[in-house]
Amino acid sequence: MGEERKIPYKIYLEEKEMPDSWYNVRADMKNKPAPLLNPGTLKPMTVEELSGVFCTELCKQELDDTTAYFEIPEEIREFYKMYRPSPLVRAYCLEKKLQTPAKIYYKFEGNNTSGSHKLNSAIAQAYYAKKQGLKGVTTETGAGQWGTALSMACAYLGLDCQVFMVKCSYEQKPFRREVMRTYGANVTPSPSEKTAVGRKMLEEFPGTTGSLGCAISEAVEAATTQEGYRYVLGSVLNQVLLHQSVIGLETKAAMDKYGIKPDVIIGCAGGGSNLGGLISPFMGQKLRGEADYRFIAVEPASCPSFTRGKFAYDFCDTGKICPLAKMYTLGSGFIPSANHAGGLRYHGMSSVLSQLYHDGYMEAVSVEQTSVFQAAQEFARVEGILPAPESAHAIRAAMDEALKCKETGEEKTILFGLTGTGYFDMVAYERFNNGEMSDSIPTDADLEKGFAGIPKFPGNEF
Amino acid sequence: MGEERKIPYKIYLEEKEMPDSWYNVRADMKNKPAPLLNPGTLKPMTVEELSGVFCTELCKQELDDTTAYFEIPEEIREFYKMYRPSPLVRAYCLEKKLQTPAKIYYKFEGNNTSGSHKLNSAIAQAYYAKKQGLKGVTTETGAGQWGTALSMACAYLGLDCQVFMVKCSYEQKPFRREVMRTYGANVTPSPSEKTAVGRKMLEEFPGTTGSLGCAISEAVEAATTQEGYRYVLGSVLNQVLLHQSVIGLETKAAMDKYGIKPDVIIGCAGGGSNLGGLISPFMGQKLRGEADYRFIAVEPASCPSFTRGKFAYDFCDTGKICPLAKMYTLGSGFIPSANHAGGLRYHGMSSVLSQLYHDGYMEAVSVEQTSVFQAAQEFARVEGILPAPESAHAIRAAMDEALKCKETGEEKTILFGLTGTGYFDMVAYERFNNGEMSDSIPTDADLEKGFAGIPKFPGNEF
Repeated sequence: MGEERKIPYKIYLEEKEMPDSWYNVRADMKNKPAPLLNPGTLKPMTVEELSGVFCTELCKQELDDTTAYFEIPEEIREFYKMYRPSPLVRAYCLEKKLQTPAKIYYKFEGNNTSGSHKLNSAIAQAYYAKKQGLKGVTTETGAGQWGTALSMACAYLGLDCQVFMVKCSYEQKPFRREVMRTYGANVTPSPSEKTAVGRKMLEEFPGTTGSLGCAISEAVEAATTQEGYRYVLGSVLNQVLLHQSVIGLETKAAMDKYGIKPDVIIGCAGGGSNLGGLISPFMGQKLRGEADYRFIAVEPASCPSFTRGKFAYDFCDTGKICPLAKMYTLGSGFIPSANHAGGLRYHGMSSVLSQLYHDGYMEAVSVEQTSVFQAAQEFARVEGILPAPESAHAIRAAMDEALKCKETGEEKTILFGLTGTGYFDMVAYERFNNGEMSDSIPTDADLEKGFAGIPKFPGNEF
Repeated sequence: MGEERKIPYKIYLEEKEMPDSWYNVRADMKNKPAPLLNPGTLKPMTVEELSGVFCTELCKQELDDTTAYFEIPEEIREFYKMYRPSPLVRAYCLEKKLQTPAKIYYKFEGNNTSGSHKLNSAIAQAYYAKKQGLKGVTTETGAGQWGTALSMACAYLGLDCQVFMVKCSYEQKPFRREVMRTYGANVTPSPSEKTAVGRKMLEEFPGTTGSLGCAISEAVEAATTQEGYRYVLGSVLNQVLLHQSVIGLETKAAMDKYGIKPDVIIGCAGGGSNLGGLISPFMGQKLRGEADYRFIAVEPASCPSFTRGKFAYDFCDTGKICPLAKMYTLGSGFIPSANHAGGLRYHGMSSVLSQLYHDGYMEAVSVEQTSVFQAAQEFARVEGILPAPESAHAIRAAMDEALKCKETGEEKTILFGLTGTGYFDMVAYERFNNGEMSDSIPTDADLEKGFAGIPKFPGNEF
């Protein structure tokens, strides 16, 4: 491969090259993301209002759209050293397989027991809870990556961790549940008898297998009714994007070290935590006019918030108890047809990314499930890593870009985020291996039903 | 932590520092491991005899006990770069948790999709099969790590991969099976209708869920009855230890780079592939009188080949079709009581390690299952990594050594091999989390039954 092989297969930063601060892309946005609104008063939420549910320090991070850098506390940096820096991988084998002149890189966040990038924010949120003197935190989990990450962070800091796990996942994903229990988390199938909202749900729908919306409501209730507890969330929020900026900062440092400049940066988008984290420092350059990049958000065709959603204030949860956020949304009542990328089934999207997309700084594409698993399989066979279905959305788009380069002969540099591993998603792979997988694309009528649930008030036209 | 923090959490070698050759510890052994014997003639097996079953180049490696270094072919080195070097981790958090003055390091081999060190030999064996112009390879798998590794290697090289998977694992570990299928392997539950030995077994025992012994027999039959196929094996053999020496060579290079000298080197021992690979270069120094180390093999109390077995020629498989090997053995008919470390349930042990143990160069301990999972859980909570049950045997012994240092105040440097991750072993963790795990230690009478199956002939007294 001659000259090119100067770039190793994997670029690892040294510990001393790891970022000391998180980068807050909001500081460089001319059009700031719209503030969270109190659903009762429709006024912007204050730190005081939020701090009954979230840790105080995290509320400050949530609302701060002017501070560009937040120093990463020493204890979090120490934790990061246990599984970071994550490798930036040159996909030589994939390039060869695709016979593309493109140069493909991916930042691989799956080399930790949570199996994904979620740990980057879990340790930060757990740290601030501990620092505030709390006893524990509550959260919900669907697919289980966030719950696992939070369990690991809490075990490390000696903090109680209460996870409300959607009942069907609790029963169908016993392995994820046991990883959390091994890390000492208290995992409750939701709906449960532990909360008023859970009891009400069980009374009304005795056989229900639960929903993420209900699990969120239970977790928030558990946080606000127990002394010394707060609620934490693994995506969508501004604070989560801030913490996840460590992905992008490491990537940029590694690329700068070898003089690599990406032309296209690609990430899968559910709530936006990984994509927002990966692109942050590059987007900052673009916003400041220092460099230009193409950014592509990839979402499942079955849950197309960016590509077919509305840009409006909407509820973040189906229980409608959380603040309103302005974002690309399919409506909090939208139920995506069954797909195997649990992490990408959210109806809304980070306000930061929504604003950037709205302002034309970012593109979005939607991809169909079968072609996603084809990409996952092809990638696994040549690059060795078995990707999570969520991550495979980014692989699909990156391969499509690389194949375009093959046609045009362009030697573009493509960077994508490989958020995690698929070890706990083998039921999905089995369906694919057996040829039983389908693409479930919502009709316009399906979408209209979801849009009908978006609240209407002056200034929220869409 | 002051001065000590000069050692990073994780030491990664650069690509150019990775080993170019495998090291063959047999070359430095004064007492060579006893040769494999033809079970019919009781004469040493020749390359010619072996090459009907194994690839010719691998037969040569198997029988060569004088060449110290074998150059690693370029194509294998390229593959290694996709997931190697593996990190050498300083277990700062575990040390802190144990409050020990000991310095603990582990070489982590789990950061690849096969989830273990097995890939190191799988790619080598697949490479030589490809080079010989074969169409494919056959093998058996129990727990599934070896089958997964071989599937990955074959997918990379475009070689057909036929895996006979013990039927109960095939049914109870569908996720492992699907990983193999995702890599394109043909996975057959054993016993099967595909082979004469399988058909005979099904006729005699219609409801059988299979055994490793039967799966080996089927795989060997499939290899020898199909044009262009050979059989490959993931442990026990000399060639496997040779390939796995990459673990020890990387470890030693990383330690030398930082001026670290281990006092004790610990690894779990099933067939011996990981332990043999880890200790090889260090053992070489000891054999040549250049340095001294303590080596500890850790085995499950339920399958104690070293600590309670006999040193004798025995069958390698329960089907008694493979050559006889001289080793510490519990008898090929010994059935270990159910335990969750499938990779450590083998009745015998590498001939190389057996000879070294016999000659006093290495110690061995056996540990009980419950204490192994206690160690696994404690390790997972502070070090983040969820270990495979097999690997957790080494963790248990390393923690015990570190706790001894706490009592004596000695600042020993302890190195152990962390062979893999436990993502596909959550049934075992669930049992532990629920307090339902037990230790199953064979009685002397149980062992006598196994010993009765060891063949008796002149020179094979025990």
